[in-house]
Amino acid sequence: MDGEDRLESIVDFCRLIDREKFIQRHTYLTDGKRLENDAEHAWHMAIMAMLLAEYSNEKIDVLRTIGMLLIHDLVEIYAGDTFAYDTEGLKSQKEREAEAAEKLYSQLPSDLSGRLRSLWDEFESGDTPEARFAHTLDNFQPLMLQSATDGKSWKEDGRKLSEVLRRNACSGQGSERLWEYARRHFIAPQLEKGHLQKDTELP
Amino acid sequence: MDGEDRLESIVDFCRLIDREKFIQRHTYLTDGKRLENDAEHAWHMAIMAMLLAEYSNEKIDVLRTIGMLLIHDLVEIYAGDTFAYDTEGLKSQKEREAEAAEKLYSQLPSDLSGRLRSLWDEFESGDTPEARFAHTLDNFQPLMLQSATDGKSWKEDGRKLSEVLRRNACSGQGSERLWEYARRHFIAPQLEKGHLQKDTELP
Repeated sequence: MDGEDRLESIVDFCRLIDREKFIQRHTYLTDGKRLENDAEHAWHMAIMAMLLAEYSNEKIDVLRTIGMLLIHDLVEIYAGDTFAYDTEGLKSQKEREAEAAEKLYSQLPSDLSGRLRSLWDEFESGDTPEARFAHTLDNFQPLMLQSATDGKSWKEDGRKLSEVLRRNACSGQGSERLWEYARRHFIAPQLEKGHLQKDTELP
Repeated sequence: MDGEDRLESIVDFCRLIDREKFIQRHTYLTDGKRLENDAEHAWHMAIMAMLLAEYSNEKIDVLRTIGMLLIHDLVEIYAGDTFAYDTEGLKSQKEREAEAAEKLYSQLPSDLSGRLRSLWDEFESGDTPEARFAHTLDNFQPLMLQSATDGKSWKEDGRKLSEVLRRNACSGQGSERLWEYARRHFIAPQLEKGHLQKDTELP
């Protein structure tokens, strides 16, 4: 690939990922009026990583964490969003997203393709301090929005505490402190108000 | 500020900046259906910085560049968006945004407030290789979207080439290569189609 082709293929990729802005999540923004999209979610978490890195259980490389957070949902451009509470969708998610990653990243020059793919693999495997903290933020940020909208989509969906705890099973592994904060400030008040169904005990 | 207050003030700030998602820009997304917002714009440029850093005229610290791009529009939460072609608004922009920065960043613990404020000041002054490259991307990304929508908002606004060149007066200072690419691939075709008014020569 010569110099001009290289630049062109990177720019084509940059144009393609604009589509992430069309992928809707299941969390309302703080005004409670519309749902968040993947790009907004990634931006929000990247800044949160800058501001909250000190609360990671382990020391982290902030740039790698931010890189993971910025790109981790790009596969949804081809695989679509899988709702964290969609048990059927979750079964095929790994396979669909691995195919999507192959299709997506192969459009970049091989060095960049390898770099992004390896960041995504690291996030997916969740085996490094950076990936563990990124996963914690990926759960903490929607809990924060949920609380800001007084549990709006939890109420709409009849969400149960046991489901929220299952989704957050690994949140303490990235940051005990943030997971404790989320339980106390984001989850407990919604349980008390009955906006989240109390089918089990909050630890 | 004790430990719990510190975390709470950071989380409050993280919740506050959700408002950046409500601030509309003047560029259409690639589907041409709706305008981009500030958070989407910042996310897009942060990934572009990861992928295009090699085209910076000078060697850059990518983390600092990404940090600048992620936060550079936060002041608009209080100051509002100033359209790059709004000559009246541009006159008061510096002052309005400096006040907004003071109000915004003072809500963080002082060490973080200082860090974000200094990143923003660096972007604003445009005096470092990172700030120069960030400004180039801040112009390159909307040109890319403009081209993807066949100059949709340029047509709507009767935009002139001289205005686009004025806005991009410093684009070559961050990256000659990207500015040359933008002229050839994003601007020239729209001039030829008459979607951008040719009131001067394209260099």
